[in-house]
Amino acid sequence: MGLEDFFPIWDKLTANERELLTQSAVKRAVPKGTLLHNGSADCVGLFIICSGQLRAFILSDEGKEVTIYRLLAHDICLFSASCIMDSIQFEITVEAEKDSELWIIPAKVYKKLMEGSAAVANYTNQLMAERFSEVMWLMEQIMWKSFDKRLAAFLLEESFLENSTVLKITHDKIASHMGTAREVVTRMLRYFQSEGMVALARGHVELTDMKRLRELAK
Amino acid sequence: MGLEDFFPIWDKLTANERELLTQSAVKRAVPKGTLLHNGSADCVGLFIICSGQLRAFILSDEGKEVTIYRLLAHDICLFSASCIMDSIQFEITVEAEKDSELWIIPAKVYKKLMEGSAAVANYTNQLMAERFSEVMWLMEQIMWKSFDKRLAAFLLEESFLENSTVLKITHDKIASHMGTAREVVTRMLRYFQSEGMVALARGHVELTDMKRLRELAK
Repeated sequence: MGLEDFFPIWDKLTANERELLTQSAVKRAVPKGTLLHNGSADCVGLFIICSGQLRAFILSDEGKEVTIYRLLAHDICLFSASCIMDSIQFEITVEAEKDSELWIIPAKVYKKLMEGSAAVANYTNQLMAERFSEVMWLMEQIMWKSFDKRLAAFLLEESFLENSTVLKITHDKIASHMGTAREVVTRMLRYFQSEGMVALARGHVELTDMKRLRELAK
Repeated sequence: MGLEDFFPIWDKLTANERELLTQSAVKRAVPKGTLLHNGSADCVGLFIICSGQLRAFILSDEGKEVTIYRLLAHDICLFSASCIMDSIQFEITVEAEKDSELWIIPAKVYKKLMEGSAAVANYTNQLMAERFSEVMWLMEQIMWKSFDKRLAAFLLEESFLENSTVLKITHDKIASHMGTAREVVTRMLRYFQSEGMVALARGHVELTDMKRLRELAK
Protein backbone atom coordinates (compact mmCIF):
# COMPACT_ATOMS: atom_id res chain seq x y z
CA MET A 1 0.00 0.00 0.00
CA GLY A 2 1.26 3.45 -0.88
CA LEU A 3 1.22 6.72 1.00
CA GLU A 4 -2.18 7.62 -0.49
CA ASP A 5 -3.71 4.74 1.48
CA PHE A 6 -2.38 6.08 4.76
CA PHE A 7 -2.72 9.84 4.40
CA PRO A 8 -6.32 10.45 5.44
CA ILE A 9 -7.09 13.60 3.48
CA TRP A 10 -5.31 12.59 0.26
CA ASP A 11 -8.42 13.45 -1.79
CA LYS A 12 -8.37 17.02 -0.46
CA LEU A 13 -4.83 17.67 -1.70
CA THR A 14 -3.96 19.33 -5.02
CA ALA A 15 -1.85 17.47 -7.56
CA ASN A 16 1.18 19.56 -6.55
CA GLU A 17 0.70 18.81 -2.87
CA ARG A 18 0.41 15.09 -3.59
CA GLU A 19 3.61 15.15 -5.59
CA LEU A 20 5.45 17.03 -2.85
CA LEU A 21 4.35 14.44 -0.30
CA THR A 22 5.17 11.46 -2.50
CA GLN A 23 8.63 12.75 -3.30
CA SER A 24 9.60 13.65 0.25
CA ALA A 25 8.01 10.92 2.38
CA VAL A 26 10.26 8.02 3.35
CA LYS A 27 9.16 4.56 4.41
CA ARG A 28 11.10 3.03 7.25
CA ALA A 29 11.06 -0.28 9.10
CA VAL A 30 12.10 -0.06 12.75
CA PRO A 31 12.70 -2.93 15.16
CA LYS A 32 10.99 -3.06 18.56
CA GLY A 33 12.75 -0.84 21.07
CA THR A 34 13.90 1.84 18.59
CA LEU A 35 13.80 5.34 20.04
CA LEU A 36 12.12 7.33 17.29
CA HIS A 37 11.76 10.75 18.81
CA ASN A 38 13.36 12.26 21.84
CA GLY A 39 11.81 15.50 23.10
CA SER A 40 11.65 18.88 21.46
CA ALA A 41 15.31 19.12 20.40
CA ASP A 42 14.47 16.43 17.89
CA CYS A 43 12.16 17.21 14.97
CA VAL A 44 12.16 14.23 12.64
CA GLY A 45 8.81 14.72 11.01
CA LEU A 46 5.30 13.36 11.02
CA PHE A 47 5.05 9.59 11.45
CA ILE A 48 2.25 7.66 9.77
CA ILE A 49 2.15 4.16 11.18
CA CYS A 50 1.70 1.38 8.58
CA SER A 51 2.06 -1.54 10.99
CA GLY A 52 3.29 -2.24 14.49
CA GLN A 53 2.88 -0.11 17.60
CA LEU A 54 4.49 3.06 18.92
CA ARG A 55 4.38 4.37 22.46
CA ALA A 56 4.48 8.06 23.38
CA PHE A 57 5.55 8.91 26.92
CA ILE A 58 6.81 11.73 29.09
CA LEU A 59 9.93 11.51 31.18
CA SER A 60 10.66 13.23 34.51
CA ASP A 61 14.04 14.74 35.39
CA GLU A 62 14.69 11.65 37.49
CA GLY A 63 13.94 9.35 34.56
CA LYS A 64 10.43 8.29 35.62
CA GLU A 65 8.07 7.56 32.73
CA VAL A 66 4.34 7.81 32.10
CA THR A 67 2.77 6.41 28.93
CA ILE A 68 0.61 9.09 27.29
CA TYR A 69 -0.81 7.16 24.37
CA ARG A 70 -0.19 4.36 21.87
CA LEU A 71 -0.18 4.65 18.08
CA LEU A 72 -1.33 1.76 15.90
CA ALA A 73 -1.63 1.24 12.12
CA HIS A 74 -3.07 4.32 10.36
CA ASP A 75 -2.44 6.55 13.38
CA ILE A 76 -0.40 9.70 12.91
CA CYS A 77 2.21 11.01 15.31
CA LEU A 78 2.18 14.81 15.24
CA PHE A 79 4.52 15.55 18.12
CA SER A 80 7.53 13.96 16.45
CA ALA A 81 7.25 17.07 14.25
CA SER A 82 6.63 19.43 17.17
CA CYS A 83 8.94 22.09 15.67
CA ILE A 84 6.26 22.85 13.06
CA MET A 85 4.43 24.77 15.81
CA ASP A 86 6.24 27.12 18.18
CA SER A 87 3.47 26.83 20.72
CA ILE A 88 4.18 23.17 21.49
CA GLN A 89 6.21 23.58 24.66
CA PHE A 90 6.36 20.07 25.98
CA GLU A 91 8.59 17.11 25.40
CA ILE A 92 7.29 13.76 24.35
CA THR A 93 9.41 10.67 23.71
CA VAL A 94 8.31 8.12 21.12
CA GLU A 95 9.56 4.54 20.83
CA ALA A 96 8.63 1.51 18.76
CA GLU A 97 6.94 -0.89 21.16
CA LYS A 98 6.72 -3.60 18.50
CA ASP A 99 8.52 -4.05 15.17
CA SER A 100 6.92 -1.30 13.10
CA GLU A 101 6.76 0.19 9.63
CA LEU A 102 6.08 3.87 9.15
CA TRP A 103 6.05 6.70 6.66
CA ILE A 104 8.02 9.74 7.73
CA ILE A 105 6.98 13.10 6.29
CA PRO A 106 9.74 15.67 6.86
CA ALA A 107 8.68 18.45 9.27
CA LYS A 108 9.53 21.19 6.76
CA VAL A 109 7.36 19.66 4.06
CA TYR A 110 4.41 19.20 6.39
CA LYS A 111 4.74 22.74 7.69
CA LYS A 112 4.66 24.08 4.14
CA LEU A 113 1.54 22.04 3.31
CA MET A 114 -0.17 23.14 6.51
CA GLU A 115 0.52 26.82 5.90
CA GLY A 116 -0.89 26.70 2.40
CA SER A 117 -3.86 24.41 2.81
CA ALA A 118 -6.87 24.94 5.08
CA ALA A 119 -7.68 21.22 4.67
CA VAL A 120 -4.27 20.12 5.98
CA ALA A 121 -4.33 22.73 8.78
CA ASN A 122 -7.80 21.62 9.89
CA TYR A 123 -6.77 18.00 9.74
CA THR A 124 -3.78 18.83 11.96
CA ASN A 125 -6.19 20.49 14.37
CA GLN A 126 -8.21 17.33 14.51
CA LEU A 127 -5.11 15.22 15.23
CA MET A 128 -4.07 17.54 18.03
CA ALA A 129 -7.57 17.56 19.52
CA GLU A 130 -7.54 13.73 19.57
CA ARG A 131 -4.24 13.58 21.45
CA PHE A 132 -5.38 16.41 23.73
CA SER A 133 -8.48 14.39 24.58
CA GLU A 134 -6.36 11.36 25.44
CA VAL A 135 -4.17 13.44 27.74
CA MET A 136 -7.18 15.00 29.47
CA TRP A 137 -8.61 11.53 30.00
CA LEU A 138 -5.31 10.38 31.51
CA MET A 139 -5.14 13.42 33.76
CA GLU A 140 -8.63 12.80 35.08
CA GLN A 141 -7.67 9.19 35.73
CA ILE A 142 -4.57 10.22 37.64
CA MET A 143 -6.37 12.91 39.65
CA TRP A 144 -9.55 11.13 40.50
CA LYS A 145 -9.42 7.42 39.84
CA SER A 146 -8.11 5.03 42.48
CA PHE A 147 -5.09 2.96 41.51
CA ASP A 148 -6.96 -0.38 41.43
CA LYS A 149 -9.29 0.97 38.72
CA ARG A 150 -6.39 2.42 36.70
CA LEU A 151 -4.46 -0.86 36.92
CA ALA A 152 -7.49 -2.90 35.83
CA ALA A 153 -7.99 -0.54 32.85
CA PHE A 154 -4.29 -0.82 31.96
CA LEU A 155 -4.32 -4.64 32.03
CA LEU A 156 -7.44 -4.73 29.84
CA GLU A 157 -5.89 -2.33 27.31
CA GLU A 158 -2.70 -4.41 27.17
CA SER A 159 -4.75 -7.55 26.70
CA PHE A 160 -6.59 -5.85 23.82
CA LEU A 161 -3.34 -4.67 22.19
CA GLU A 162 -1.67 -8.08 22.54
CA ASN A 163 -4.84 -9.97 21.69
CA SER A 164 -4.13 -12.35 24.57
CA THR A 165 -5.11 -12.78 28.20
CA VAL A 166 -1.51 -13.73 29.05
CA LEU A 167 0.65 -10.62 29.22
CA LYS A 168 4.42 -10.89 29.05
CA ILE A 169 5.16 -7.87 31.16
CA THR A 170 7.12 -7.22 34.36
CA HIS A 171 5.80 -5.28 37.35
CA ASP A 172 8.58 -2.78 36.73
CA LYS A 173 7.37 -2.15 33.18
CA ILE A 174 3.78 -1.67 34.34
CA ALA A 175 5.03 0.82 36.93
CA SER A 176 6.83 2.74 34.15
CA HIS A 177 3.71 2.93 32.03
CA MET A 178 1.64 4.20 34.92
CA GLY A 179 4.16 6.56 36.48
CA THR A 180 4.29 4.81 39.83
CA ALA A 181 6.65 2.60 41.86
CA ARG A 182 7.10 -1.13 41.27
CA GLU A 183 6.12 -1.94 44.87
CA VAL A 184 2.74 -0.25 44.37
CA VAL A 185 2.07 -2.38 41.29
CA THR A 186 3.20 -5.61 42.96
CA ARG A 187 0.99 -4.98 46.00
CA MET A 188 -2.10 -4.34 43.88
CA LEU A 189 -1.43 -7.31 41.54
CA ARG A 190 -1.15 -9.59 44.60
CA TYR A 191 -4.48 -8.27 45.80
CA PHE A 192 -5.98 -8.91 42.32
CA GLN A 193 -4.55 -12.45 42.50
CA SER A 194 -6.07 -13.07 45.94
CA GLU A 195 -9.40 -12.00 44.43
CA GLY A 196 -8.97 -14.43 41.52
CA MET A 197 -8.79 -11.72 38.85
CA VAL A 198 -5.22 -12.47 37.74
CA ALA A 199 -2.65 -15.23 38.08
CA LEU A 200 0.97 -14.13 38.52
CA ALA A 201 4.10 -15.92 37.32
CA ARG A 202 7.64 -14.71 36.66
CA GLY A 203 7.45 -12.12 33.87
CA HIS A 204 3.78 -12.90 33.18
CA VAL A 205 0.38 -11.64 34.27
CA GLU A 206 -2.57 -13.77 33.24
CA LEU A 207 -6.02 -12.19 33.31
CA THR A 208 -8.30 -14.84 34.77
CA ASP A 209 -11.51 -12.90 35.39
CA MET A 210 -12.08 -10.41 32.57
CA LYS A 211 -15.61 -9.67 33.70
CA ARG A 212 -14.59 -8.49 37.16
CA LEU A 213 -11.63 -6.56 35.77
CA ARG A 214 -14.00 -4.77 33.39
CA GLU A 215 -16.41 -3.94 36.18
CA LEU A 216 -13.56 -2.61 38.29
CA ALA A 217 -12.18 -0.48 35.43
CA LYS A 218 -15.55 1.13 34.64
CA MET B 1 -11.05 49.24 21.24
CA GLY B 2 -12.80 47.20 18.57
CA LEU B 3 -12.64 43.55 17.64
CA GLU B 4 -9.76 44.22 15.23
CA ASP B 5 -7.56 45.10 18.22
CA PHE B 6 -8.26 41.79 19.89
CA PHE B 7 -8.35 39.34 17.00
CA PRO B 8 -4.68 38.50 16.51
CA ILE B 9 -4.64 37.61 12.81
CA TRP B 10 -7.00 40.38 11.66
CA ASP B 11 -4.50 41.43 8.96
CA LYS B 12 -4.59 37.93 7.47
CA LEU B 13 -8.36 37.99 6.94
CA THR B 14 -10.09 38.96 3.71
CA ALA B 15 -12.56 41.87 3.67
CA ASN B 16 -15.45 39.39 3.64
CA GLU B 17 -14.09 37.46 6.59
CA ARG B 18 -13.64 40.68 8.56
CA GLU B 19 -17.18 41.72 7.85
CA LEU B 20 -18.54 38.32 8.88
CA LEU B 21 -16.67 38.57 12.18
CA THR B 22 -17.67 42.15 12.87
CA GLN B 23 -21.33 41.45 12.19
CA SER B 24 -21.55 38.30 14.28
CA ALA B 25 -19.30 38.98 17.27
CA VAL B 26 -21.00 40.22 20.42
CA LYS B 27 -19.37 42.11 23.26
CA ARG B 28 -20.49 41.10 26.72
CA ALA B 29 -19.74 42.23 30.26
CA VAL B 30 -19.95 39.51 32.89
CA PRO B 31 -19.74 39.90 36.67
CA LYS B 32 -17.32 37.84 38.73
CA GLY B 33 -18.66 34.35 39.36
CA THR B 34 -20.58 34.00 36.07
CA LEU B 35 -20.49 30.47 34.67
CA LEU B 36 -19.64 31.05 31.01
CA HIS B 37 -19.28 27.58 29.66
CA ASN B 38 -20.28 24.25 31.08
CA GLY B 39 -18.79 21.18 29.42
CA SER B 40 -19.30 19.85 25.93
CA ALA B 41 -23.09 20.07 25.83
CA ASP B 42 -22.62 23.82 25.75
CA CYS B 43 -21.10 25.45 22.67
CA VAL B 44 -21.36 29.20 23.08
CA GLY B 45 -18.51 30.26 20.85
CA LEU B 46 -14.97 31.55 21.00
CA PHE B 47 -14.30 34.01 23.82
CA ILE B 48 -11.77 36.80 23.34
CA ILE B 49 -11.04 38.40 26.68
CA CYS B 50 -10.94 42.23 26.68
CA SER B 51 -10.47 42.68 30.41
CA GLY B 52 -10.83 40.68 33.60
CA GLN B 53 -9.94 37.06 34.23
CA LEU B 54 -11.49 33.71 33.35
CA ARG B 55 -10.71 30.36 34.90
CA ALA B 56 -10.95 27.04 33.04
CA PHE B 57 -11.27 23.94 35.16
CA ILE B 58 -12.26 20.28 35.04
CA LEU B 59 -14.81 18.73 37.35
CA SER B 60 -14.94 15.16 38.67
CA ASP B 61 -18.15 13.15 39.01
CA GLU B 62 -18.02 13.91 42.72
CA GLY B 63 -17.75 17.64 42.09
CA LYS B 64 -14.00 18.02 42.74
CA GLU B 65 -12.31 20.73 40.70
CA VAL B 66 -8.85 21.30 39.26
CA THR B 67 -7.90 24.61 37.65
CA ILE B 68 -6.41 23.97 34.21
CA TYR B 69 -5.50 27.49 33.15
CA ARG B 70 -6.42 31.17 33.45
CA LEU B 71 -7.29 33.54 30.63
CA LEU B 72 -6.39 37.23 30.82
CA ALA B 73 -6.90 40.21 28.49
CA HIS B 74 -6.18 39.30 24.84
CA ASP B 75 -6.31 35.57 25.57
CA ILE B 76 -8.69 33.42 23.56
CA CYS B 77 -10.81 30.60 24.91
CA LEU B 78 -11.14 27.90 22.26
CA PHE B 79 -12.84 25.19 24.30
CA SER B 80 -15.99 27.22 24.88
CA ALA B 81 -16.48 26.48 21.18
CA SER B 82 -15.45 22.83 21.45
CA CYS B 83 -18.25 21.71 19.12
CA ILE B 84 -16.31 23.18 16.18
CA MET B 85 -14.12 20.09 16.37
CA ASP B 86 -15.55 16.60 16.81
CA SER B 87 -12.27 15.32 18.16
CA ILE B 88 -12.44 17.38 21.36
CA GLN B 89 -13.74 14.74 23.72
CA PHE B 90 -13.29 16.37 27.09
CA GLU B 91 -15.31 18.72 29.21
CA ILE B 92 -13.99 22.00 30.48
CA THR B 93 -15.90 24.48 32.60
CA VAL B 94 -15.17 28.21 32.29
CA GLU B 95 -16.13 30.89 34.80
CA ALA B 96 -15.40 34.59 35.23
CA GLU B 97 -13.01 34.83 38.15
CA LYS B 98 -13.13 38.64 38.09
CA ASP B 99 -15.58 41.08 36.48
CA SER B 100 -14.74 40.62 32.81
CA GLU B 101 -15.49 41.93 29.34
CA LEU B 102 -15.29 39.65 26.36
CA TRP B 103 -16.07 39.28 22.69
CA ILE B 104 -18.02 36.18 21.79
CA ILE B 105 -17.63 34.81 18.28
CA PRO B 106 -20.41 32.30 17.54
CA ALA B 107 -19.11 28.75 17.08
CA LYS B 108 -20.73 28.38 13.64
CA VAL B 109 -19.09 31.54 12.34
CA TYR B 110 -15.67 30.54 13.61
CA LYS B 111 -16.03 27.05 12.16
CA LYS B 112 -16.84 28.53 8.76
CA LEU B 113 -13.83 30.84 8.90
CA MET B 114 -11.56 28.01 9.97
CA GLU B 115 -12.70 25.70 7.20
CA GLY B 116 -12.11 28.30 4.52
CA SER B 117 -8.92 29.94 5.70
CA ALA B 118 -5.54 28.27 6.26
CA ALA B 119 -4.52 31.33 8.32
CA VAL B 120 -7.43 30.92 10.76
CA ALA B 121 -6.97 27.14 10.90
CA ASN B 122 -3.26 27.49 11.65
CA TYR B 123 -3.97 30.13 14.26
CA THR B 124 -6.47 27.75 15.90
CA ASN B 125 -3.73 25.11 15.91
CA GLN B 126 -1.45 27.49 17.71
CA LEU B 127 -4.12 28.24 20.34
CA MET B 128 -4.72 24.58 20.94
CA ALA B 129 -0.99 23.85 21.18
CA GLU B 130 -0.66 26.59 23.83
CA ARG B 131 -3.42 25.12 25.98
CA PHE B 132 -2.07 21.62 25.39
CA SER B 133 1.31 22.78 26.67
CA GLU B 134 -0.27 24.20 29.82
CA VAL B 135 -2.08 20.95 30.48
CA MET B 136 1.09 18.90 29.94
CA TRP B 137 2.91 21.18 32.38
CA LEU B 138 0.16 20.70 34.94
CA MET B 139 0.20 16.93 34.48
CA GLU B 140 3.95 16.80 35.03
CA GLN B 141 3.49 18.89 38.17
CA ILE B 142 0.81 16.56 39.49
CA MET B 143 2.77 13.41 38.65
CA TRP B 144 6.20 14.41 39.74
CA LYS B 145 6.28 17.53 41.84
CA SER B 146 5.82 17.38 45.58
CA PHE B 147 2.85 19.28 46.99
CA ASP B 148 4.96 21.94 48.77
CA LYS B 149 6.47 22.99 45.43
CA ARG B 150 3.08 23.04 43.72
CA LEU B 151 1.56 25.12 46.52
CA ALA B 152 4.43 27.63 46.46
CA ALA B 153 4.02 27.95 42.66
CA PHE B 154 0.26 28.44 43.06
CA LEU B 155 0.65 31.18 45.70
CA LEU B 156 3.19 33.01 43.53
CA GLU B 157 0.90 32.83 40.49
CA GLU B 158 -2.04 34.16 42.53
CA SER B 159 0.13 36.96 43.85
CA PHE B 160 1.11 37.83 40.27
CA LEU B 161 -2.53 37.78 39.07
CA GLU B 162 -3.75 39.88 42.02
CA ASN B 163 -0.70 42.13 41.96
CA SER B 164 -0.52 41.83 45.75
CA THR B 165 1.29 39.77 48.37
CA VAL B 166 -1.91 39.56 50.40
CA LEU B 167 -4.25 36.97 48.92
CA LYS B 168 -7.92 36.97 49.84
CA ILE B 169 -8.44 33.25 49.44
CA THR B 170 -9.67 30.44 51.67
CA HIS B 171 -7.89 27.12 52.14
CA ASP B 172 -10.95 25.48 50.66
CA LYS B 173 -10.65 27.53 47.47
CA ILE B 174 -6.94 26.72 47.15
CA ALA B 175 -7.80 23.02 47.55
CA SER B 176 -10.35 23.35 44.72
CA HIS B 177 -7.82 24.94 42.39
CA MET B 178 -5.28 22.23 43.08
CA GLY B 179 -7.59 19.24 43.14
CA THR B 180 -6.77 18.22 46.70
CA ALA B 181 -8.40 18.24 50.15
CA ARG B 182 -8.63 21.32 52.39
CA GLU B 183 -6.78 19.56 55.22
CA VAL B 184 -3.77 18.96 52.95
CA VAL B 185 -3.64 22.67 52.09
CA THR B 186 -4.05 23.81 55.70
CA ARG B 187 -1.29 21.49 56.90
CA MET B 188 1.17 22.72 54.28
CA LEU B 189 0.27 26.41 54.80
CA ARG B 190 0.92 25.99 58.54
CA TYR B 191 4.28 24.50 57.73
CA PHE B 192 5.00 27.46 55.41
CA GLN B 193 3.98 29.79 58.25
CA SER B 194 6.30 28.06 60.71
CA GLU B 195 9.09 28.61 58.19
CA GLY B 196 8.23 32.32 57.88
CA MET B 197 7.19 32.11 54.23
CA VAL B 198 3.55 33.09 54.77
CA ALA B 199 1.38 34.65 57.47
CA LEU B 200 -2.13 33.22 57.87
CA ALA B 201 -5.27 35.05 58.95
CA ARG B 202 -8.95 34.29 58.48
CA GLY B 203 -9.64 34.29 54.71
CA HIS B 204 -6.17 35.69 53.95
CA VAL B 205 -2.75 34.34 53.08
CA GLU B 206 0.09 36.86 53.13
CA LEU B 207 3.28 35.96 51.31
CA THR B 208 6.08 37.13 53.61
CA ASP B 209 9.16 35.59 51.99
CA MET B 210 8.83 35.73 48.21
CA LYS B 211 12.45 34.73 47.69
CA ARG B 212 12.13 31.43 49.54
CA LEU B 213 8.78 30.70 47.94
CA ARG B 214 10.37 31.22 44.52
CA GLU B 215 13.26 28.93 45.36
CA LEU B 216 10.86 26.28 46.58
CA ALA B 217 8.67 26.54 43.47
CA LYS B 218 11.58 26.21 41.05
